[in-house]
Amino acid sequence: VEVAGQLVSSGLRGTDTHGTVLVRRYIEGIGSGAINKAPKIRVLRQGSSTALIDGDFGAGQFVATKATQMAIGKARKTGIGAVSAIKVQHLGTLAYYAAIISSRRMAGILFTNSSAWGAPLGRAKRTFGTNPLCFVFPHKEFPLILDMATTAAAGMKIFLMSKEGATLPEGWAIDKEGRPTTDPNEAQEGILLPFGGHKGSGLMLMTELYSALLSGGMVSYKISPPDAQGGFYVQALDIGRFRKYRTYARDLDRLVETVKSGPLTEGYKEVLLPGELEARTAAERTRAGIPVDMETWDYFEILSSKYHISLPRLI
Amino acid sequence: VEVAGQLVSSGLRGTDTHGTVLVRRYIEGIGSGAINKAPKIRVLRQGSSTALIDGDFGAGQFVATKATQMAIGKARKTGIGAVSAIKVQHLGTLAYYAAIISSRRMAGILFTNSSAWGAPLGRAKRTFGTNPLCFVFPHKEFPLILDMATTAAAGMKIFLMSKEGATLPEGWAIDKEGRPTTDPNEAQEGILLPFGGHKGSGLMLMTELYSALLSGGMVSYKISPPDAQGGFYVQALDIGRFRKYRTYARDLDRLVETVKSGPLTEGYKEVLLPGELEARTAAERTRAGIPVDMETWDYFEILSSKYHISLPRLI
Repeated sequence: VEVAGQLVSSGLRGTDTHGTVLVRRYIEGIGSGAINKAPKIRVLRQGSSTALIDGDFGAGQFVATKATQMAIGKARKTGIGAVSAIKVQHLGTLAYYAAIISSRRMAGILFTNSSAWGAPLGRAKRTFGTNPLCFVFPHKEFPLILDMATTAAAGMKIFLMSKEGATLPEGWAIDKEGRPTTDPNEAQEGILLPFGGHKGSGLMLMTELYSALLSGGMVSYKISPPDAQGGFYVQALDIGRFRKYRTYARDLDRLVETVKSGPLTEGYKEVLLPGELEARTAAERTRAGIPVDMETWDYFEILSSKYHISLPRLI
Repeated sequence: VEVAGQLVSSGLRGTDTHGTVLVRRYIEGIGSGAINKAPKIRVLRQGSSTALIDGDFGAGQFVATKATQMAIGKARKTGIGAVSAIKVQHLGTLAYYAAIISSRRMAGILFTNSSAWGAPLGRAKRTFGTNPLCFVFPHKEFPLILDMATTAAAGMKIFLMSKEGATLPEGWAIDKEGRPTTDPNEAQEGILLPFGGHKGSGLMLMTELYSALLSGGMVSYKISPPDAQGGFYVQALDIGRFRKYRTYARDLDRLVETVKSGPLTEGYKEVLLPGELEARTAAERTRAGIPVDMETWDYFEILSSKYHISLPRLI
């Protein structure tokens, strides 16, 4: 149920790379045994504000939701809770877990690593994953979710651009010999560069340390399919421990109003907050439906006849 | 003592913008009363893993060191500690407090905001400070410290480049009308852009939320000199709560070795880790001394005769 919930959520928010297109991967993962259908999640270590759990290679959504709930529970008791999970399968977007945290009036920080495709600045060999990190703060209109790969582009984006025959912007990738490339096919064989120069490169490393080194999760360069994620780190911070939530919310409204008003930079139509575009897409798609690509739809038809599930109405 | 300790530490690490050059600002701040010589630090709220403190406008180094020590103490008891400080004066580099955390075998995350000079992408009005954030993990050779402004360049850098008559790289700043500029003088009147596009822009906002919104600290656009920092957030996480520190350290050694070896990208001589260059400079300067600019040295001579303090030997 967590898996389906997250795929729909990602699809609604417009993160099509992490939506319905993943159904096939997950069903085949269960078929091959890569995803453990009946995982026994074990708590390996636990303190009043921290825990380390073993996900037994269960569906990432199931394990990561559990870890997030534990972090929230600890934050309720002590003000902040931090939970790491190892042996976890593909868990989708971090934004999903971030939204659970913000719905509890808490702020969160999340990390995960994945099989190596990127590298820190200067190294011409796949070292780290696209290593996303995520920050979240609650806000009345939509949660302020910053969910970002620490590579210049997410892996699925390169894949889609290759399919379209598009050219990559400079600074996104190097080929396998360490030379700059704008060819998405060479990038698929090569290495993804961090975003934002040495700062993004440093964040890529920090994401690795939180995901794998802190917990003993698998480091990115040792992850190979069907394994997906080396480790997952989530922390929840109870805003009410610092000040009245109502006062926080009022001050945030004012801040958002300020950011949204006033003069714009040349070429901009508005100032967008983290998570704002996704919230708009979700509102639109809740009304109009989630677009599904033909290949995925064909797979849905196979599943439909195999398991006698009726398909949603086409629009 | 914390103040002097930090200035020397920053100077040793090569962060000259936050070293001896600040002595004058601090002494004058005490003279004018902007920095409270005898602050009464009060704990406003406290739980087992969190605290909010009022720094009474004492020297930032004093207040932030206190907050860092509290976070470490809480992390020792519960696994993680998070402390926010408001009413805090200029606190120098976050790297200084990060090093205290890593010396206790803990990982840390730190944020602070400052008077508005930057803005999120799209807004052509000063909104947020250079809003640095800092991550740290302990490592046997030197702490892995990523201490970075979320603007493309730190404010002092623009100031120094203006003095030198240098040209700014594109993407660092816009003028006060919101048009791109490479003139450091226009940038000083204008707005600093976030690093790394919308990702850096999002991190700039998150830094603001941790520094001011969580704690009720002053938001960047309300800070005006002589106030320096709106708020300070520090968290310490006890690595030993997740796995044996020895195992962490061994795995990190291997990771560092891997990152440092193997093929290099075109144009690179080595892969540098966060904090590595600063650690090298510190080793060099511990031997050879800290360079001091002439203006600062002249000020030292005035102080020397006024307070009968002998000056260090020139090299």
